[in-house]
Amino acid sequence: MMKILVLNSGSSSIKYKLFEMPECASLAAGIIQRIGEESSIIKQESANGEVKFEQPIKNHEEGLELIQSLLTQNDHAIIQTLDEIDACGHRIVHGGESISGSVLIDDQVETIIEEYFDLAPLHNPPNLIGVRAAKKFLTNVPHIACFDTAFHQTLTPIAYMYALPYEFYQKFKIRKYGFHGTSHLYVARRAAKLLNIPMEQVKLITCHLGNGCSITAVEHGKSVDTSMGLTPLEGLIMGTRTGDFDPAIVFHLIRKGYRAEELDVIANKRSGLLGISGISNDVRDLVNKAETGHERARLALEMFCYRLKKYIGSYLAVLNGCDGIVFTGGIGENASILREWTIANISALGITLDHQKNDEAGSNERFINSPDSKIKIMVIPTNEEIAIALETYDIMTKGN
Amino acid sequence: MMKILVLNSGSSSIKYKLFEMPECASLAAGIIQRIGEESSIIKQESANGEVKFEQPIKNHEEGLELIQSLLTQNDHAIIQTLDEIDACGHRIVHGGESISGSVLIDDQVETIIEEYFDLAPLHNPPNLIGVRAAKKFLTNVPHIACFDTAFHQTLTPIAYMYALPYEFYQKFKIRKYGFHGTSHLYVARRAAKLLNIPMEQVKLITCHLGNGCSITAVEHGKSVDTSMGLTPLEGLIMGTRTGDFDPAIVFHLIRKGYRAEELDVIANKRSGLLGISGISNDVRDLVNKAETGHERARLALEMFCYRLKKYIGSYLAVLNGCDGIVFTGGIGENASILREWTIANISALGITLDHQKNDEAGSNERFINSPDSKIKIMVIPTNEEIAIALETYDIMTKGN
Repeated sequence: MMKILVLNSGSSSIKYKLFEMPECASLAAGIIQRIGEESSIIKQESANGEVKFEQPIKNHEEGLELIQSLLTQNDHAIIQTLDEIDACGHRIVHGGESISGSVLIDDQVETIIEEYFDLAPLHNPPNLIGVRAAKKFLTNVPHIACFDTAFHQTLTPIAYMYALPYEFYQKFKIRKYGFHGTSHLYVARRAAKLLNIPMEQVKLITCHLGNGCSITAVEHGKSVDTSMGLTPLEGLIMGTRTGDFDPAIVFHLIRKGYRAEELDVIANKRSGLLGISGISNDVRDLVNKAETGHERARLALEMFCYRLKKYIGSYLAVLNGCDGIVFTGGIGENASILREWTIANISALGITLDHQKNDEAGSNERFINSPDSKIKIMVIPTNEEIAIALETYDIMTKGN
Repeated sequence: MMKILVLNSGSSSIKYKLFEMPECASLAAGIIQRIGEESSIIKQESANGEVKFEQPIKNHEEGLELIQSLLTQNDHAIIQTLDEIDACGHRIVHGGESISGSVLIDDQVETIIEEYFDLAPLHNPPNLIGVRAAKKFLTNVPHIACFDTAFHQTLTPIAYMYALPYEFYQKFKIRKYGFHGTSHLYVARRAAKLLNIPMEQVKLITCHLGNGCSITAVEHGKSVDTSMGLTPLEGLIMGTRTGDFDPAIVFHLIRKGYRAEELDVIANKRSGLLGISGISNDVRDLVNKAETGHERARLALEMFCYRLKKYIGSYLAVLNGCDGIVFTGGIGENASILREWTIANISALGITLDHQKNDEAGSNERFINSPDSKIKIMVIPTNEEIAIALETYDIMTKGN
């Protein structure tokens, strides 16, 4: 029995979850938002009920101090003291080429996290602040880092290099890194179990469709290709991100007077489903609008599915066929109509959906392919916190 | 019987070919290079032998004057007077959304060619100069325009729209246009014949691999998707062009101090096979180097094939299977090793190569799949000039 705290520190937020392992039982889950602003919002749920309030929180250290008291003090207390926590797992976005799995955080790992500030300027700095703050409170426990990029470190140069001058890789580390690795790895393991195929043999295509969307080709349990690149802009269409587009469009628009910084914001925040539809980045909204005749809402969703289908075909070629396709993430788990549009007219590749199973709502792991589908199709809810808790538990019990 | 002159006017060159139709017999073929420079180079081949010399040629009109005299005067004369020419076919790069087939050039068509100067600044202006100069010499014959973009006008918005803000399409016409259309259409028609399937029913994936590389999904004889985009930078890796890469790399490098114009040149002229290998954009060179152990030459070629394979898989998903895959263009027709690497380990998708047939050199149309390959694989030499002559002949005989 072991208690593991999972922390995900953003620039102005800390998400946390306390687990009893190895059962993965959630003891408490909370979030602090708007750290550093006038008033921060604190929310925690546990078996002892929900607390929600506002108070100013200057920085991540103050945030962790509050989390400590929420977990240990007053009526809502989950544990007596922080000493009951056996380990702390941290979500870290970018580990670059140095990190290919979850690791115990020592000085060297902190240095690596710093090294990739340049390539993940929005994530690695607050991730490291979170680690350092947490180490002050949880002084006697191991801190484990789970990196979004780690699972994709098995890509070969053929898959991760861009056809740019080679010096860009040597000088600036410009290559495909891929993200959402913790989620892709988690659902790949679950899928292997469901298919009853050893992880070392399984061939999968995992589609993580949430706020960000990415797709990964998994061969012998290893990531061999993935759609996100140097940054999370590349690949599939997302809520507000473009995914793939002719990079020369950037040059063309700069010649038309746009500034690069402006286009960066447009491509990341005002494009994707929102940009095409002109109305929303929310799939449920768009499905409703599309059903009532909004043409651009429908176009946005159809493009989303078309691009996803193209990636599935592409990864089928990479894997020379596969055992299963996994849908996960908020959209992947819930938007049955998008799964249907994606898996339409693709039977020649051995993939057919069971429409009834696909339409059944549920939060359980399930198959949604028709019985004769050569390739199985699964919906597997992802749970990044559980994935991090499991990684942390593994290192605690098996070593690094 | 009909004589058709085919013209391809670049910024400093005119390529021309005179055909006897409908046999597609080449009577003469020539090229003038370095127009406007101190000394221009003129070359012509015909049944009457080869001529090659240098002389200054100020502009396209002077170039056409010279072509006239080469065709009609001295020992090498092919025809008595220009009156024997029945029609003139012009290669035009960009017809945008207005043009979905070859057309008789009237004022309106000239206006359309001008409209797309902005989107094809290197090609449409000299193309139009060529048309106007040719009209002065061949005053009494129809001039026909064959557009690189025309064949791809059957793409639906789902395939041609980018997930950028919709206004970019409305204001700036930013969408996928695709190029190499004349070649893709030509080899698709030839492939349909070889497969003995009517063009209206055939499903094909055509790979045009030459100086530029693009791949097209053809359904019911129509282009439904293609890899080049707003510009010819998007899609496959090419000799010096990147093909697809995370567009955010542009933003990243601009933050590092690069200028957009500089990156535009790098992505178009110093990337691709040349950029990765660091030594050459020539496939023969690179194959030789790779065979003698040059690692980056091998990496460049392997990446080229890997990306091509991914597009093939992607278009198989788009088409829900297909009848045949066509290789054409200088690389597609000749580099058997790249065909082999591309079609390796893809048998689960119903595609297998006959290695011996693949290795046989030849300039003929031929099948290179193994007998049990569900999807046929063909090598079909492309001939853009013949394609343009055929298009022109069609319009002359059947009307537009």
